[in-house]
Amino acid sequence: MKRVIKTAFLLPAMLCLCGVSYGGGPVVNAADYGLREGADNTPAIRKALEVCRRTGASKLVIPCGTYDLYPDGAADKYCNIANNDDGMKRVVFLLDGLEDFEVDGDGSLFVCHDHMVPFEAEGCRNLRLSNFSVDWASPFYLQGQVVGVDEAANSFDMEILDECSWELQGRRLAWSNKRGATTDNWYFMAPPMQKDVVWYQDLYWNIWYDPETKAPAYCDELTTRVMGWNFALDRPAVVSDLGGGTVRLTDACDELPREGWILVSIGLRSPNRLSPAIHIAGCEGVEVENMTVHHAAGMALVAESSENIILRNYNVLLPEGSPRIVTATADATHFVGCKGDIVLEGCTFENMLDDGTNIHNVYAEVERPAGPNSLVMTLGHSQHQGFRFAFPGEQVALTEARTLRPYRTLTVDRVEAVNSHTFEVTFREEIGDGLRPGSVAENLTRQPDVVIRDCEVRRNRARGILISTSGKVLVENNRFLKCTYAGIMLSGDANYWFESGHVGDLTVRGNLFEDQGLVTGNAPVLCIIPEVGEGSDPSWFYHRNIVFEGNTVNSFSRVLVEARSAENITFRNNVVNPSAGYPLADPAAPAFIFDRCRNVDIGGNSYNWPAPATVHAGPGCSAITASGNAGIDDFRLD
Amino acid sequence: MKRVIKTAFLLPAMLCLCGVSYGGGPVVNAADYGLREGADNTPAIRKALEVCRRTGASKLVIPCGTYDLYPDGAADKYCNIANNDDGMKRVVFLLDGLEDFEVDGDGSLFVCHDHMVPFEAEGCRNLRLSNFSVDWASPFYLQGQVVGVDEAANSFDMEILDECSWELQGRRLAWSNKRGATTDNWYFMAPPMQKDVVWYQDLYWNIWYDPETKAPAYCDELTTRVMGWNFALDRPAVVSDLGGGTVRLTDACDELPREGWILVSIGLRSPNRLSPAIHIAGCEGVEVENMTVHHAAGMALVAESSENIILRNYNVLLPEGSPRIVTATADATHFVGCKGDIVLEGCTFENMLDDGTNIHNVYAEVERPAGPNSLVMTLGHSQHQGFRFAFPGEQVALTEARTLRPYRTLTVDRVEAVNSHTFEVTFREEIGDGLRPGSVAENLTRQPDVVIRDCEVRRNRARGILISTSGKVLVENNRFLKCTYAGIMLSGDANYWFESGHVGDLTVRGNLFEDQGLVTGNAPVLCIIPEVGEGSDPSWFYHRNIVFEGNTVNSFSRVLVEARSAENITFRNNVVNPSAGYPLADPAAPAFIFDRCRNVDIGGNSYNWPAPATVHAGPGCSAITASGNAGIDDFRLD
Repeated sequence: MKRVIKTAFLLPAMLCLCGVSYGGGPVVNAADYGLREGADNTPAIRKALEVCRRTGASKLVIPCGTYDLYPDGAADKYCNIANNDDGMKRVVFLLDGLEDFEVDGDGSLFVCHDHMVPFEAEGCRNLRLSNFSVDWASPFYLQGQVVGVDEAANSFDMEILDECSWELQGRRLAWSNKRGATTDNWYFMAPPMQKDVVWYQDLYWNIWYDPETKAPAYCDELTTRVMGWNFALDRPAVVSDLGGGTVRLTDACDELPREGWILVSIGLRSPNRLSPAIHIAGCEGVEVENMTVHHAAGMALVAESSENIILRNYNVLLPEGSPRIVTATADATHFVGCKGDIVLEGCTFENMLDDGTNIHNVYAEVERPAGPNSLVMTLGHSQHQGFRFAFPGEQVALTEARTLRPYRTLTVDRVEAVNSHTFEVTFREEIGDGLRPGSVAENLTRQPDVVIRDCEVRRNRARGILISTSGKVLVENNRFLKCTYAGIMLSGDANYWFESGHVGDLTVRGNLFEDQGLVTGNAPVLCIIPEVGEGSDPSWFYHRNIVFEGNTVNSFSRVLVEARSAENITFRNNVVNPSAGYPLADPAAPAFIFDRCRNVDIGGNSYNWPAPATVHAGPGCSAITASGNAGIDDFRLD
Repeated sequence: MKRVIKTAFLLPAMLCLCGVSYGGGPVVNAADYGLREGADNTPAIRKALEVCRRTGASKLVIPCGTYDLYPDGAADKYCNIANNDDGMKRVVFLLDGLEDFEVDGDGSLFVCHDHMVPFEAEGCRNLRLSNFSVDWASPFYLQGQVVGVDEAANSFDMEILDECSWELQGRRLAWSNKRGATTDNWYFMAPPMQKDVVWYQDLYWNIWYDPETKAPAYCDELTTRVMGWNFALDRPAVVSDLGGGTVRLTDACDELPREGWILVSIGLRSPNRLSPAIHIAGCEGVEVENMTVHHAAGMALVAESSENIILRNYNVLLPEGSPRIVTATADATHFVGCKGDIVLEGCTFENMLDDGTNIHNVYAEVERPAGPNSLVMTLGHSQHQGFRFAFPGEQVALTEARTLRPYRTLTVDRVEAVNSHTFEVTFREEIGDGLRPGSVAENLTRQPDVVIRDCEVRRNRARGILISTSGKVLVENNRFLKCTYAGIMLSGDANYWFESGHVGDLTVRGNLFEDQGLVTGNAPVLCIIPEVGEGSDPSWFYHRNIVFEGNTVNSFSRVLVEARSAENITFRNNVVNPSAGYPLADPAAPAFIFDRCRNVDIGGNSYNWPAPATVHAGPGCSAITASGNAGIDDFRLD
């Protein structure tokens, strides 16, 4: 935290709470440019922002109200958005390049209509977003609740949320931005020529929620997933319209859902992250405070290639009183290639379809040398296109893709884009013949320090948080409740997600973890699984220096720690209780599972399940000790 | 033609045939920058073009050869491409802004790989493309030939062209840019994260070809179309793999195909026009000569908002010796919002999935006034986004969308884009309260003169040519053979395609029309069907001054002329013979059908079908005469 407190932009930020503007320039009130409830406020905000630019304003004030935002009058911008879907976007708050600037919503709610990126900030310096909420008038997903189950007919009936514009296309359940708008697209195979048909989807990617817990249903994700094609029966699922907004799905899943369960489907998984709510790119100093995102088609907030991002009381929450069961259809927050400090304080993230946060950098694939000092590289993930991998002066490591082990550190002289997929990096050093086949490259400089404190991540699909940075990371006094997989995950891979970053100093303390692993039945609270291939040097470890202490874990999951290629893990003074709400996982299974780990210390913990916990250490492990615990069998491997 | 001959850029173009460069600058040889057969030549061409720009070169020479072009090293450009699909494109020959410049291919063949726009020219002046061919290594469509038909099982077996990378996804037949690459997308619903999975499709939009004629099969388009869902049987079609590249389709169409027929499917109709071969935008003076396009995912050549475009011996042809049955998956040429002269001379267009040419402008929808002189307008067609509707000094007419009748002419002062869909036009005149509800606007200035001479359009889906311009149009000595609908179409609508342009001076003479209407069984050789709603002023006509004379028509189609809202039509000295190859349409039907037409003269024609031709004139017609013909009943309506 020290570095954050020293940054200059915090002082004016604090001052602004006392009514003084952020940067000293004039304050612009959007109401003076046509903002009013009940209208399309996109033109008014666009006009007010033009005035802000022209006058060098320090603050745009939105008087408290509920404001609709339509894409019609919004600016176009082609956006590469890391881990979301690129494209030509309509942007309402186009904040690019603004410095020492603040948007103060005064408690306003912005209601977006159809695809857009309401907040886009590229190349800003000292930007502050505060005191507003963002929602969409209708969700981009399909939601339906099971109102009847017929085991004999292998079918269930589902009442679809009135907000969703759906129709049947033969056996298929499709939905769109406009009720009845998709028929022509299907039957006559006509293109969506008209301006009112913008998107449509049918049942692909989906998940069940439990209305009692408002969390993902406790079930097997694969057998209960609704499919268009039933693999076991080798025939298509059939959807029929029962009238009154209710449909019957027959042969749609291997295991029928329970009555009351709520299905959420986003349709095709990609492209589907088309409208994240807030996109921050290439910024220095961004503060988001007292803000809530209720929905987004994609991530609620994504920051890339930026420095010093502080989120305080930034929340991702279901709209109050709404029957919706999902907020953002991807992560609540996501940070790619950032540096400096990332701070999340007092934030609550609920009911997302992906993680609470994921902080990582990107592995680029090394294609070939382009000169004695130069390498041609590409970005392997379709959602990393256009990502800025490195900047002059930064350290980049060449790394074996198979083992993920860095073997050479180089200093960037310059980076030239060939296109959004390919770029050429010229280093200050000659590479010589040292380039190994099957190499990737990782950026060693853009490794932020992170503080996540007093936050709550709950009822989301996927993980609590993912950390991949060699900076100092503190995860303290948070609550991670009812997610579908691990509480805290340390990953790293160069073959699919291409997410890089070796943890070097992580402390997880004083947190509550409760009932993670809802769709697997057994997920580690701490999961360290870099995709390090077999046959790597046993004396090298991908992640290091991880302290997990003083946490409380109330879980149905037997496995507490699963770790691969990590050294110096301390699991100390934690209390682990059996879940109160879900059946416990197989108690015969080990609670600690290590694969190629060194120097693990498990001590001072209280494990309060009926069956004591055990430790399993696979090949390549050494110096693993469990002793001085209650309810954990002693274990020692030298 | 006079205006064309006077334009300055023709003289150097002719000189260049004698080895003198086009603009006086140096000549760059791409071989000096790494061009060589067997390699990816995109980087070499990019480098050579950089040198051309730097040195002010007048000509880029490609020594005769076959050159592969891959997208990997190509530049990115976000392209709005009229009547094709917009998006971030990889462009190889990125010619934007070049003046007095020529690309001379010396007879070379460029073989493109995967989606790209090989030739993109925006804002050029005096550009010449000559002496090369463009093809793709594998087609974007799926092609298969019927090798067996089982009436009892309502199925047919189809052998798929080896060039197509297909697989089964349950009952569905899918194809992709890489064999076997789509399984994960389907089964695990994973996004196409990896760089080698770029696109995939399944059986939507499709058409049958007849291998004997190499033309579209003579059949009913709707009943023979292959469907994923069988509407009549209310169940899905089923595709099964018979091995050896053969699949069986059951319940896939209402009427089974014949053995030998060839199916071509492009998958979803939109987005599917992603890779036109040549895109020209905002250029003045473009000459394309001795050039052939063999395939394109979209149009072979599309020019928009440009002036003076000459195509000589520009062809769209099947690759020699190839089993492929389709060239471009859309039009051979298409001109939107152009002015000056458009010339097509000695061109052959075959086996496209859309028209030989379509020359039109765009109706913009008037949304609301934005001031006494200003109107906010939008572009109603999804493939017109970003189109530049008008420029300062141009004449724009306000028009009733329902009747298509212009009611007020205004002069453009300036146009400001709100985004690619919406723009604000400020006129020199005040509009006052004269704006009628339900209005569109059309550009009266961008109405090119057109010469289409010595061309052949054959074996394509859709029409021969579409003409919508008030300029002088001459269609002379061409051959229009075996298309699926009308030979020459004059259209206009403000509700779906939004194509504008009143014909004012059209002469069609000395052409051969043969067997148009293959999938309808009866299509007019001259089809004039502007979508003028009922109740329009009967004294006003959308198209005017159409002379159709001295043509030969060998056709199975009974209807020769279908016309709506047109005046001054002369159908003179034409010879009409029955088709030699196809069954004749119902001879009892009228050959001339008029709806709200005035001043029609049918004289001096020889109609050589067994049954004489008759004229039908509906309500709102006047001054229609047929006399002095052989084989056409005399007709007179005053």
